[in-house]
Amino acid sequence: MKYGIVAFPSKTLQDLANSYRKRYDPHYSRITPHMTLKGVFEANDKEIETVAKEVAEIARKSRPFHLNLTKVSSFAPITNTIYFKVESNDELLSLHEALNNESFFGEQPEYSFVPHITIAQKLSSGEHDDILGQIKMGNTSHEETIDRIHLLYQLEDGSWTVYETFRLAGEA
Amino acid sequence: MKYGIVAFPSKTLQDLANSYRKRYDPHYSRITPHMTLKGVFEANDKEIETVAKEVAEIARKSRPFHLNLTKVSSFAPITNTIYFKVESNDELLSLHEALNNESFFGEQPEYSFVPHITIAQKLSSGEHDDILGQIKMGNTSHEETIDRIHLLYQLEDGSWTVYETFRLAGEA
Repeated sequence: MKYGIVAFPSKTLQDLANSYRKRYDPHYSRITPHMTLKGVFEANDKEIETVAKEVAEIARKSRPFHLNLTKVSSFAPITNTIYFKVESNDELLSLHEALNNESFFGEQPEYSFVPHITIAQKLSSGEHDDILGQIKMGNTSHEETIDRIHLLYQLEDGSWTVYETFRLAGEA
Repeated sequence: MKYGIVAFPSKTLQDLANSYRKRYDPHYSRITPHMTLKGVFEANDKEIETVAKEVAEIARKSRPFHLNLTKVSSFAPITNTIYFKVESNDELLSLHEALNNESFFGEQPEYSFVPHITIAQKLSSGEHDDILGQIKMGNTSHEETIDRIHLLYQLEDGSWTVYETFRLAGEA
């Protein structure tokens, strides 16, 4: 089964992201707006129990982190994906590192970590340039604190269900 | 903000439910297949923290329950909603009771509790009769154990995000 780990932001920020995703993101209906902390990995029913225990342990030791949106950006020309850029900080980086280092389950990430919330993807180059220009004119400044992360699994139709949430308890 | 409490069944059962929901349930993209344990209620940011604490306490005391699907049924003529009927049992009933009794947050339920997983809704009467007949010919027998429940909130576009999961720890 396919799993992933994300943080869901507040309703305010999810509503803002969805106002774009509704039109520009074909994955809009598969999952609500999120920041990926550990990309898709495969695990069987036994393995996921161990993974869940390890994530619980990581969450217990991790502090809540500040989520600060500063601007809209794009992964073009690698992919025509537009996103809210999330400013990096120590808490977020160390959480990401704990969930992705070699001693943890799953493959090492292929790219370096760019914290973000996707708002548009699978665009043609023309669409990408148009939409990026439009979205940049909107308001994208937002701050909040994230105090929990979610372990998800994927259904056959591509949609994601939450397996478990973990509070960032900050006992490190 | 609107909240609700549900149990998400296993991937196997969700995939089965989605094979029908994809075609027959306009709420298909808002939430993955689920059994509602406490219907929609309103709470503000302060209240929901209290609610979450109470749900945690209820979950700690509640035992995991057996989810046994026996047949396909319908709420017609009240509404043209078709569902997998979930057999009731003591664990499930006492969990539902704890989440809906008067000392807990939110309105009392309007109807008596019929444990179910919706697979089709908002149908015309003609569609309803056709589809119910078709679905009844499929395989709907399934058993599993549910060991966690989920507190959700609703976004402006109608979709649901998980606020927190709670393990049924069975310490009662």
